[in-house]
Amino acid sequence: MTEIALRNVRLLVAYDGTDFHGFAESDGMRTVMGVLSETVGRITQYAVRLTGAGRTDAGVHAWGQVISGSLPAGTDLGRLQTSLNRMLGPEIAVRDATWVADSFSARFAATSRTYRYDVWNDRVPNPLIARTAWNVGPHLDLDAMNAAAGDLVGDHDFTSFCRRAKPAPGHDAPSMRRVVLSARWRRIDDGSLLRFEIGASSFCHQMVRSIVGTLVEVGQGRRSADSMPATLAAGHRNAAGQIAPATGLALWQVGYDGARWDA
Amino acid sequence: MTEIALRNVRLLVAYDGTDFHGFAESDGMRTVMGVLSETVGRITQYAVRLTGAGRTDAGVHAWGQVISGSLPAGTDLGRLQTSLNRMLGPEIAVRDATWVADSFSARFAATSRTYRYDVWNDRVPNPLIARTAWNVGPHLDLDAMNAAAGDLVGDHDFTSFCRRAKPAPGHDAPSMRRVVLSARWRRIDDGSLLRFEIGASSFCHQMVRSIVGTLVEVGQGRRSADSMPATLAAGHRNAAGQIAPATGLALWQVGYDGARWDA
Repeated sequence: MTEIALRNVRLLVAYDGTDFHGFAESDGMRTVMGVLSETVGRITQYAVRLTGAGRTDAGVHAWGQVISGSLPAGTDLGRLQTSLNRMLGPEIAVRDATWVADSFSARFAATSRTYRYDVWNDRVPNPLIARTAWNVGPHLDLDAMNAAAGDLVGDHDFTSFCRRAKPAPGHDAPSMRRVVLSARWRRIDDGSLLRFEIGASSFCHQMVRSIVGTLVEVGQGRRSADSMPATLAAGHRNAAGQIAPATGLALWQVGYDGARWDA
Repeated sequence: MTEIALRNVRLLVAYDGTDFHGFAESDGMRTVMGVLSETVGRITQYAVRLTGAGRTDAGVHAWGQVISGSLPAGTDLGRLQTSLNRMLGPEIAVRDATWVADSFSARFAATSRTYRYDVWNDRVPNPLIARTAWNVGPHLDLDAMNAAAGDLVGDHDFTSFCRRAKPAPGHDAPSMRRVVLSARWRRIDDGSLLRFEIGASSFCHQMVRSIVGTLVEVGQGRRSADSMPATLAAGHRNAAGQIAPATGLALWQVGYDGARWDA
């Protein structure tokens, strides 16, 4: 029996999610994690098991997804990164690869996540950013959207904005309490591109897309700018607006606690 | 014999050139103009003949391409625009459609063109802009590139930067004299995205991509920042650098002379 020494690696990964069936591995589907695991396995000749910081849905992108897992300790990370970028680019890009402490988990060690959502607010679509922005025709009132977004900042129960996972038999429904650290829209280059950034301790399923869809309804005047407290208090999905499409969303950055995880 | 009244239209058009074999109609190829003419023809039931301001090469994009041609005078331009955007979007978008004077030609009435070229300057590619930017790994010296770009501004013979069309038998080679009005690089958001904008009376074939390729060599230190006057003076293609890939290039804006063409 042969034993190989393993070491924990952290990968910083960007991808265009358009042509993937989401992030998490799923039998018979082309997913970001599936393609990555398979390719890392092919290069290292080791059946690697990777963990991601955020499970992005089908069509959602990432700039700063973080992935961890154990690799043979002799792996040359610089060469691994170069090989991955050559084999998977430009659809997936490994921006960084470093050894980290064994106790590091991309998912459980994360203390915050930031998502970015782009809206192209013009009655005519923009072909140059069609893969990464949601086209909303009617004019949006950015001030109203920011007033509403401000009411989401803080420690709240986000049940109204969460696609609820069915609890396992005999278990209580998981808590949808989350701490939103920041939520702000800004106009890029005085033009038609509106960019939303939201940071939180963590997010429940489809929370960002549900928030964006609801705030866009505020921007269209279909909801009032001061309606968020009532929407939060309602505690059911029907209180919130439509789910914004995956196209405009990207997992932008994952925060960790200082240098605790250095290898 | 039936006669139908015709009227001259001007379309402002954006497209993602990635999946087209260029702009100009070409037998058996999928081109922007081919797809547009066919679709306008299908909607108006009239075999339209369109003219574009700039013949972009395969893979080159546009934000502000201008196209003119005669349509049946009874055409509802608002509905035509909506139909075209529904049928061709988001790959092609008609940003505007207006009647113009019969004497207007998108090509011959144009007094200036502006192109934009995006370079992603990082050793790791960026999946989110892979369709619209050229990835250049080695660090580029923006100041050197701007010093060199400045020497291209003005009235020069750009033979060194032009793919020369073979003159028709019995004709002299066409002049490659052009007036460059502005040429400047800037860094976007203090990040790795470098954006070049160049305006000129008109451009010869592959002039922007040849200039970008040459300036990138300046940025890498492979050419000196003060070498442009000699490169221009050389008067042959070997004096310039590589042709930058089509991916990063977009026809941004076409200038016309005031309101002379209002219908």
